[in-house]
Amino acid sequence: MRTNTQVLIKALPEDKLTEDHYELVDGVIDEPPEGEVLVQTEAFAITAGTRAGLQGSASYAGAPKTGIVMNGTGVGHVVASKDPAFKEGDAVLGPTGWQQYSVHKGAALSVIDPQDDPIHYLGPLGVNGLTAYFGLFNVGQPSADETVMVSAAAGSVGHLVGQMARIHGCQVVGVAGDDAKNQTLIAQLGFHAAVNYKSADFRALLKEATPKGVDVYFDNTGGPILGAALFRLNVNGRIACCGVVSQYDTSRPEPGPKGIPGLLVNKRINMRGFLVFDFAEQYEAARSDIRGWLGSGELKSLTDEVNGLAAAPGAFVDLLAGGNIGTRVVRL
Amino acid sequence: MRTNTQVLIKALPEDKLTEDHYELVDGVIDEPPEGEVLVQTEAFAITAGTRAGLQGSASYAGAPKTGIVMNGTGVGHVVASKDPAFKEGDAVLGPTGWQQYSVHKGAALSVIDPQDDPIHYLGPLGVNGLTAYFGLFNVGQPSADETVMVSAAAGSVGHLVGQMARIHGCQVVGVAGDDAKNQTLIAQLGFHAAVNYKSADFRALLKEATPKGVDVYFDNTGGPILGAALFRLNVNGRIACCGVVSQYDTSRPEPGPKGIPGLLVNKRINMRGFLVFDFAEQYEAARSDIRGWLGSGELKSLTDEVNGLAAAPGAFVDLLAGGNIGTRVVRL
Repeated sequence: MRTNTQVLIKALPEDKLTEDHYELVDGVIDEPPEGEVLVQTEAFAITAGTRAGLQGSASYAGAPKTGIVMNGTGVGHVVASKDPAFKEGDAVLGPTGWQQYSVHKGAALSVIDPQDDPIHYLGPLGVNGLTAYFGLFNVGQPSADETVMVSAAAGSVGHLVGQMARIHGCQVVGVAGDDAKNQTLIAQLGFHAAVNYKSADFRALLKEATPKGVDVYFDNTGGPILGAALFRLNVNGRIACCGVVSQYDTSRPEPGPKGIPGLLVNKRINMRGFLVFDFAEQYEAARSDIRGWLGSGELKSLTDEVNGLAAAPGAFVDLLAGGNIGTRVVRL
Repeated sequence: MRTNTQVLIKALPEDKLTEDHYELVDGVIDEPPEGEVLVQTEAFAITAGTRAGLQGSASYAGAPKTGIVMNGTGVGHVVASKDPAFKEGDAVLGPTGWQQYSVHKGAALSVIDPQDDPIHYLGPLGVNGLTAYFGLFNVGQPSADETVMVSAAAGSVGHLVGQMARIHGCQVVGVAGDDAKNQTLIAQLGFHAAVNYKSADFRALLKEATPKGVDVYFDNTGGPILGAALFRLNVNGRIACCGVVSQYDTSRPEPGPKGIPGLLVNKRINMRGFLVFDFAEQYEAARSDIRGWLGSGELKSLTDEVNGLAAAPGAFVDLLAGGNIGTRVVRL
């Protein structure tokens, strides 16, 4: 029996999430039963999508509960294994949650290839990178001469979408809420343009940044940025609906944009929601591409690290307010 | 030179369309120039989509103008031809507008096969039927065991969509704003259920009528019916966005439904706008299917006729208020 420090959901947010919705507790954890594996967490990612799991409805994550460990994807190593597929010391990826130790059935864990940096499994080789990859290439389907726009462009998924589109040959325009972030997208990640949606003249700036219109819009936000994108989309444009970060941190989601469905008809736009899990059979093929881009230096993974479980709730609240750049990772 | 009675657009509507936005005038029409064809109109269809052409924006029809003949698709016969592809007496389909006579380049006209009833070219063999066909089969792509929902189900497109889905083997649920219309859909056209969106308990009735959820929603309306459909759509559901009749007759379109894009993501819904003209190369193949269904009696064409040009503006205003059933046709 080991002490297991955990972050529990203490209360469900009715409107904005605060640190008070969480509590840090010292629990205990037993040795794994037959067929299961005990993992010590080394790091986990904090992503905006998990905010949806704290809402009463409209989430793929099921009904929210209190008194349980906050969920999240992490990397760690095997401390004890009663599943022959895993041995002590193996680096693994899994749904560790926000805690020091967790016990899993083997099927919930993936062994991390020793050639890879485990932290990349929280970024480009993990859910974020795979979401960017399948949303862009399988849903958005840009051709090399097209313009791709992405919102929450400095976020864990967005900063990878833009780079993958640039690697593919596309013209890439990011949208984020901070001029310094936008500068990073252009200077460090090779975006061709980046626009601040908090600007009073956002729509005019977006128009200027997309002189040939937009062919694929990768939507991480919904809301007014989606509304603006609809006006810039070209005939036969595509929208890959990945997430709704503008609507997660509230109990009163806004109405959809005015151009729906009118502009979809006039411009023959295809708007498609997706979840990365639907592409599970193609993960390894995608990872092979992504590894190649990481190796050649064409794709950079931005991470934004905080230390210790106690810092996680504050880091999540800050992330929902747009405080992060790249993938926000908590190191234990 | 012949006298040519015409309905002109006198003023553009700022909000609701009224008969006063039109005027009936007696113009003249010359013999056709070289390469062109003079057609005498026998009947034309009035369709909700042309309302969008009277708005200043958000229409595929271009900027609206006054002082011109109201546009519309009609059938008629050739009175004089200076194009060798057409001879006097040929039955033709074309953009006649709301007038007795019109002159066209040959490319704008199609000769109607003598085996067909010309009036069917304003319904199942014309733009309405082709819109139903391609929107259902190419955009919605239902399989035979799926549930198809259609709005404006008693309208010129909707009543054909529901029947085509029924012929394909689908469970068919129509939505219209009148109990008598809904009764007609079930009793005469073989819809499995029909729900009145004006009912106070519309959402509950829709749920009851779609026990297995909805796989394909053919959207002719946008607005609150689209919002209700989003909640009934199954995972991997499809929305064929055909028109926005709830938003045409106003200068202040409503916001889109709240579930966009959140529900699109959670349910991996594919929402796609289309225009029938994009399928022009496949028209004849579709007509061949539709002719077969008309011949076997599986597909019925409902028309709702009024007589004379003077009645056209009133018939259009009434149609926008939901007064028609099937295709509204003006006979000259």
